Amino acid sequence: MDFLELSDRIIDSAGSHKQISAAATNRRQAPTDFSIIYSKDLLPASGGEKVTKEFLHELLNILLGYICKSSRRSGKVLDFHHPHQLKEGLEGFSLQLTDKPETLEQILVDCRDTLKYGVNTGHPRFFNQLSSGLDLIGLAGEWLTSTANSNMFTYEVSPVFILMEEVLLKKMQGIVGWSDDEGDGIFCPGGTISNLYSILVARYYFYPEVKTRGMRALPQLAIFTSEHSHYSVKKSAAVLGMGSENVLMVKCDESGKMIPVELESSIVAAEERGLVPFYVNATAGTTVYGAFDPFNDIADICHGHNLWMHVDAAWGGGLLMSDRHRMKLQGIERAWSVTWNPHKMMGVPLQCSVILIKKRGLLQDCNELGAEYLFQRDKPYDVSYDTGDKSIQCGRHVDVFKFWLMWKAKVFWYQSSRGNFTCGELVVMFASPLPQPEHSNVCFWYIPPTMRGLPPGPDRDTRLHQVAPRIKHRMMEQGSVLIGYQPLGDKVNFFRCVFSNPATQQEDVDFLLDEITRLGNDL
Amino acid sequence: MDFLELSDRIIDSAGSHKQISAAATNRRQAPTDFSIIYSKDLLPASGGEKVTKEFLHELLNILLGYICKSSRRSGKVLDFHHPHQLKEGLEGFSLQLTDKPETLEQILVDCRDTLKYGVNTGHPRFFNQLSSGLDLIGLAGEWLTSTANSNMFTYEVSPVFILMEEVLLKKMQGIVGWSDDEGDGIFCPGGTISNLYSILVARYYFYPEVKTRGMRALPQLAIFTSEHSHYSVKKSAAVLGMGSENVLMVKCDESGKMIPVELESSIVAAEERGLVPFYVNATAGTTVYGAFDPFNDIADICHGHNLWMHVDAAWGGGLLMSDRHRMKLQGIERAWSVTWNPHKMMGVPLQCSVILIKKRGLLQDCNELGAEYLFQRDKPYDVSYDTGDKSIQCGRHVDVFKFWLMWKAKVFWYQSSRGNFTCGELVVMFASPLPQPEHSNVCFWYIPPTMRGLPPGPDRDTRLHQVAPRIKHRMMEQGSVLIGYQPLGDKVNFFRCVFSNPATQQEDVDFLLDEITRLGNDL
Repeated sequence: MDFLELSDRIIDSAGSHKQISAAATNRRQAPTDFSIIYSKDLLPASGGEKVTKEFLHELLNILLGYICKSSRRSGKVLDFHHPHQLKEGLEGFSLQLTDKPETLEQILVDCRDTLKYGVNTGHPRFFNQLSSGLDLIGLAGEWLTSTANSNMFTYEVSPVFILMEEVLLKKMQGIVGWSDDEGDGIFCPGGTISNLYSILVARYYFYPEVKTRGMRALPQLAIFTSEHSHYSVKKSAAVLGMGSENVLMVKCDESGKMIPVELESSIVAAEERGLVPFYVNATAGTTVYGAFDPFNDIADICHGHNLWMHVDAAWGGGLLMSDRHRMKLQGIERAWSVTWNPHKMMGVPLQCSVILIKKRGLLQDCNELGAEYLFQRDKPYDVSYDTGDKSIQCGRHVDVFKFWLMWKAKVFWYQSSRGNFTCGELVVMFASPLPQPEHSNVCFWYIPPTMRGLPPGPDRDTRLHQVAPRIKHRMMEQGSVLIGYQPLGDKVNFFRCVFSNPATQQEDVDFLLDEITRLGNDL
Repeated sequence: MDFLELSDRIIDSAGSHKQISAAATNRRQAPTDFSIIYSKDLLPASGGEKVTKEFLHELLNILLGYICKSSRRSGKVLDFHHPHQLKEGLEGFSLQLTDKPETLEQILVDCRDTLKYGVNTGHPRFFNQLSSGLDLIGLAGEWLTSTANSNMFTYEVSPVFILMEEVLLKKMQGIVGWSDDEGDGIFCPGGTISNLYSILVARYYFYPEVKTRGMRALPQLAIFTSEHSHYSVKKSAAVLGMGSENVLMVKCDESGKMIPVELESSIVAAEERGLVPFYVNATAGTTVYGAFDPFNDIADICHGHNLWMHVDAAWGGGLLMSDRHRMKLQGIERAWSVTWNPHKMMGVPLQCSVILIKKRGLLQDCNELGAEYLFQRDKPYDVSYDTGDKSIQCGRHVDVFKFWLMWKAKVFWYQSSRGNFTCGELVVMFASPLPQPEHSNVCFWYIPPTMRGLPPGPDRDTRLHQVAPRIKHRMMEQGSVLIGYQPLGDKVNFFRCVFSNPATQQEDVDFLLDEITRLGNDL
């Protein structure tokens, strides 16, 4: 016990602040000198309000500068450096941690440098991932979320956020097409975890004993998903102890859609090998082509075999908001679970992903353990709102508020997704895509002039395989635009251009196509 | 294809902005009228810079108001309402979503209301969870992170954050006591997922075939953890398909520490039952008592039986930063994996959790699937920095920057944790704790005057069990202070006071104790 130490600390921190606020008062209107101020002078230090306000205002100026620059086409998408260059330190920007506290001035400089050497994912010419753009309402939501600094485990600590989650889950269940008396769900850290939940809950639905006894008490289960589906299905099967080789990949047609008769025959073949089929993942918007599986046909097959049908609509779910495009998801309402990432097509800041489960109560039964330090039953409110035991996490980040705020601020995703599609159609005019896009991904090869006369075949493929990486390399060095590429099946490396950024306009599409031509012309 | 639609949209959005900026120019210096402005007028709308700046400045004022109020003792910790009250709407605050976009004025009002009806986790009198306080450098880091809006899967999109993760992981591995040529790890969404990783990787280490073939190819494995350990061990075993009943709970002594001879005999008994022990979880800072298991004794046993030793230091890891307290974790360096949550004792905003794995490469081998749209091998940089395939997630939130920034800004956790301990010692003076605290959790009963003469036994226990919930109920209604309670083993409901908030001072401890007395005096 050392009261003196405690008192010293209080006096010390108050004392050091007094010097600063006296200095600040003497220099009224003069800019604050952050080079003599440290983090210990900020709140909760006694009298730290003024310095706190000045520090966060200065930070806001830095962030606003970045936001405004991001939206200007004159700025770069990225300022590329190799890992060893950044690690060695560039123009005084050191990633290394020292043993003495830095001043707030240095902290602000570090913030500027971190943004400077990062990738500008909100830039109108960032086409690299399914998530892009910077929605300012979503950003405001995220800033508030981190200021509230709470946790989703109980109503007790997050009353507003827990109820917002309920409101949004119900809304999304309705949009999927489920009736008012069905539907459950939870916000998760990303689409892979959402897909993992779907398999976890499906397994529990058919074999509730798995929770206590494990996979060894079960027959050898089999999972079905298309060869174009996201790798998270296989990854989840490995994590869940089901084995990645028990995920059977169903053939797709040329456009990337699962072929229903192939699913049917895969199921029969698996049964003949002694496996027990129980779960089918269908995809709404595949990662590379953006294809939509035929949900009604798949639902018929699942119904016939009594299999759990999941729809991974991480990418395609956003189209449910569009009168024009939602028919692509026809039959999704027959799924028993749905993954939907508002951080993709709906532009919510990272991350925001939802797993929806049709049958109410399953999620809770599957995961609850009733830890008594958190989920006491003798609390003074309706403890059914302590939803944290539905989760495979304990602490859970608040991902719901930014989404709720965006939903309030805008009911115009329909229009913006139409804009994205129109941009996609511009690329289609330029390049003959593989295949004709259903979503706003457009996949295409750039064929340099010297290769245009070559006959299709292995020689041409070998050369073509190197074109996209080489153009991408040049793009990264120049920092003018960013687009992804990959091979798929028997197709050598091709570009995948993703339109999900509302900042992207026709001129950016033109720029991208010109830039590819310029950078790849000599290959 | 509809170029007209696209052009209309561009003109439309520019047109609507022009009206606003003309209006704003005419009223130079006048406050912006957010009641006529919508989210569509913000960037990336052409000419949206000014409105964007004004909107985010106004948001900053709201957040600053909240931050300053939070640090004042005169403000409430919470303004409690039941779920049905909040759902019905309070003073115009409606959680419901409408079908027309709200103005920015309404969005700002919603932000104010969301904070008003939430719980003030940064308040000096919030003692409810292991995570509390609001670190302003961490907050600045989180605001920047959401502005950068990137993703941890590849170096390509997050060069700076990926390298910061490497720097911090190395630093933490060194502090745990591992040599330079060992150690790997990853930032995860919470301590439960970190603990899940430890079991997942341990299972893969002994039985790599589990990844492809699943649990049915393995013998019946057994996991050992103490009866005071966190429920995440059991939850993870259920998720991983190992079965919660194969998690064997080892007895603790009165202070909550695992008893080594009990571990030894549990292992032998499990083997006799045909189970195959492979993994032991030891805890550094148990959730309720804050106890530290005897790591060296446990390491000896693990060594003798060739078992994976994990240390769940989610809560206790922060003490490694303290010269005075780190001896409580002696032997942690012998663990093969460690969970450490900087969002707990180190005060990093939620969430920030790390799993450290001693053997390099295991995490990658265990989880990688090599998706070619993301982890291309023909990229123009050292692709070993594309660390995302180590993860069980695909997209992964950037949790590292706020922590990196805090580390730069302060090297004074030692002092602050000493402060927290001193506060804990004040409670110990007041109440005879169960047990003597090792960490900054203090667990105690409040015995109302009418019960002080009762002999120990079931009657007294029945009454005592209701005291903490009833006091907590009154506390929540008054909103003056927040503290948790729970039963544990044969102990009826008792309070758990957690000191992890640097804002807490001696007067807050006095207040808490007075308040418990005041609210519980008549029970």
